[in-house]
Amino acid sequence: MIERMKKQMEFIVEIDRIKSIFRKTKLFDGSRHENDAEHSWHLAMMALLLGEYSNEKIDILKTVKMVLIHDIVEIDAGDVMVYDVVDSEKLKKETSAAERIFGILPEDQKAEFMALWKEFEVKRTPESRFAAAVDRLEPVMQNYHNDAETWKEHGIKYGRIREINEKMKAGSEALWEFAHSMIAECREKHYI
Amino acid sequence: MIERMKKQMEFIVEIDRIKSIFRKTKLFDGSRHENDAEHSWHLAMMALLLGEYSNEKIDILKTVKMVLIHDIVEIDAGDVMVYDVVDSEKLKKETSAAERIFGILPEDQKAEFMALWKEFEVKRTPESRFAAAVDRLEPVMQNYHNDAETWKEHGIKYGRIREINEKMKAGSEALWEFAHSMIAECREKHYI
Repeated sequence: MIERMKKQMEFIVEIDRIKSIFRKTKLFDGSRHENDAEHSWHLAMMALLLGEYSNEKIDILKTVKMVLIHDIVEIDAGDVMVYDVVDSEKLKKETSAAERIFGILPEDQKAEFMALWKEFEVKRTPESRFAAAVDRLEPVMQNYHNDAETWKEHGIKYGRIREINEKMKAGSEALWEFAHSMIAECREKHYI
Repeated sequence: MIERMKKQMEFIVEIDRIKSIFRKTKLFDGSRHENDAEHSWHLAMMALLLGEYSNEKIDILKTVKMVLIHDIVEIDAGDVMVYDVVDSEKLKKETSAAERIFGILPEDQKAEFMALWKEFEVKRTPESRFAAAVDRLEPVMQNYHNDAETWKEHGIKYGRIREINEKMKAGSEALWEFAHSMIAECREKHYI
């Protein structure tokens, strides 16, 4: 086997571990926690279907790539909840994780994935802002559908939920409007 | 909320159920069965990384879309293993499933997904042939890495494994060559 394919296949085996990184959020039916592979698949579907609600014109393939790979660093660095305060230690850990894991790939593919991951992290392009919006929207929808189980379990209140998720506006005003209506309903029900 | 977005969000909730459709194959480490969402995420990653090995030039976004949605029908129709004989009853069930589930979407998106799903099923385009190749490759890699657990459990022997997976050639000669070397090694180890 050529060296290039060997590296690609080694990476494909390595990323299987994302299926064992469990998130704080649960499936829509609340039956169990969701893992990063399932979450990434769902975001890719949302990027395909909801791109029309992006504030700015986006390249769908680039957005899909971004959401498919955005949590791969968690294989080494662990799950971070959107409400967690991320310190410099955590950021260093994630950067090392990206270097190690994307570093398994041939140089050109490593460079592409590193760039996409960094772009997602800094959110200064239309694609990364929209990707971040769907990354926030999925857990809001999950909480809405399972009686806010995760929010209740972690004692996360309305003010904080609104503050964090309002950032969705930067990628999509329309999706934030939809998310806000769900958050407001959870508040009316005294879940949060 | 506008009617269009309502349909899209209903679909996004509905497809969460794919996370509870478990396949016969296990994760690379053999620790548990893989579900359809995880499988679809992994195929999308493979389509992004291995497109260069397609026999024919392919549209990557179209291929990624195809692998992301190809198993959604299993929400209603259940998992089918690549070694199963699929009868007309099963095909009818899958078509009804596609009609019901993709039918939740607005007309234009329903039409796109129906067309992509049918294209994947009939395998008469470069993208569908390549998508089918990675769909076959992932379980071969999984079996190779977990001592052929699924093949042993279901009593699937070398001849049948070779016969079924050789079809990979239609999408990628290079990926078949790689898969064949893994299958041959499993045979040498008397796993199959």
